[in-house]
Amino acid sequence: MTQDATSAAQECIFCAIVAGQAEASVVYEDETVVALMDLSPVTPGHLLVVPRKHAVGLEGLDGATSAHVWSVGHEMARALRRSDLRCEGINVLLCDGEAAFQTVFHFHLHVIPRYAGDGWTIKPEPLDRERSLLDRDARSIRDAIASTD
Amino acid sequence: MTQDATSAAQECIFCAIVAGQAEASVVYEDETVVALMDLSPVTPGHLLVVPRKHAVGLEGLDGATSAHVWSVGHEMARALRRSDLRCEGINVLLCDGEAAFQTVFHFHLHVIPRYAGDGWTIKPEPLDRERSLLDRDARSIRDAIASTD
Ligand SMILES: [Zn+2]
Ligand SMILES: [Zn+2]
Repeated sequence: MTQDATSAAQECIFCAIVAGQAEASVVYEDETVVALMDLSPVTPGHLLVVPRKHAVGLEGLDGATSAHVWSVGHEMARALRRSDLRCEGINVLLCDGEAAFQTVFHFHLHVIPRYAGDGWTIKPEPLDRERSLLDRDARSIRDAIASTD
Repeated sequence: MTQDATSAAQECIFCAIVAGQAEASVVYEDETVVALMDLSPVTPGHLLVVPRKHAVGLEGLDGATSAHVWSVGHEMARALRRSDLRCEGINVLLCDGEAAFQTVFHFHLHVIPRYAGDGWTIKPEPLDRERSLLDRDARSIRDAIASTD
């Protein structure tokens, strides 16, 4: 292990788990990712897919690793549906940045089995946003796409 | 268009949009997906990545399409960060099944820009689940993975 990796593992719980220096209930692993039970699950079966390589969020994660994290999340969701945990739905959630509830700053995808009446809530409060504003939002994002093509 | 596709488009708002039969503020499109503004955004800039092919959820969505939906979501998140919407974080969310807050039964990935104090909340209420229970959950999921290998 390089000195950089050692120091990352000392500071980051997921780097420590990937390096075998911290306990985890592992569900699946391959060369690129580790899937493990969340230590503070919001429902039983709540798991995380974590890339082995340290990246904070979407900005620093390369496309191939990102796609693989998602694909493993998809497989974990299918497994949860078939498992004896007998869930009735699945939320897959990424929290990118402190304003988006990220608390551990090593990229991870939440796979959260859902059960009727499990009490876990997302409070939507949708905005009443008319088409002209939606079109303006769309234009802002298209401009940002175009500016880096 | 086949008769099946016609009837799906009549019943499904996303099939109708993909078929050009309903209005949408489109951000991006390619052969496989359309990204468009959510009609009831939880924050300004809230968009959806929708596969053109009708599938209800993770169970019916093939792996290649699923990975592409995610990759486009990743790109949309990067574009939102660079856009003049000036968001401070991103949540990416999939709602698979009614118990997981799915309301439109054509697969779609939410990409939700976040702003400090935007009022959108996910109420976590984590469970206090000891290691032996986490290990049991992990075993249940590993068994489900193994049973279809
Ligand atoms: Zn790390
Ligand atoms: Zn549809």
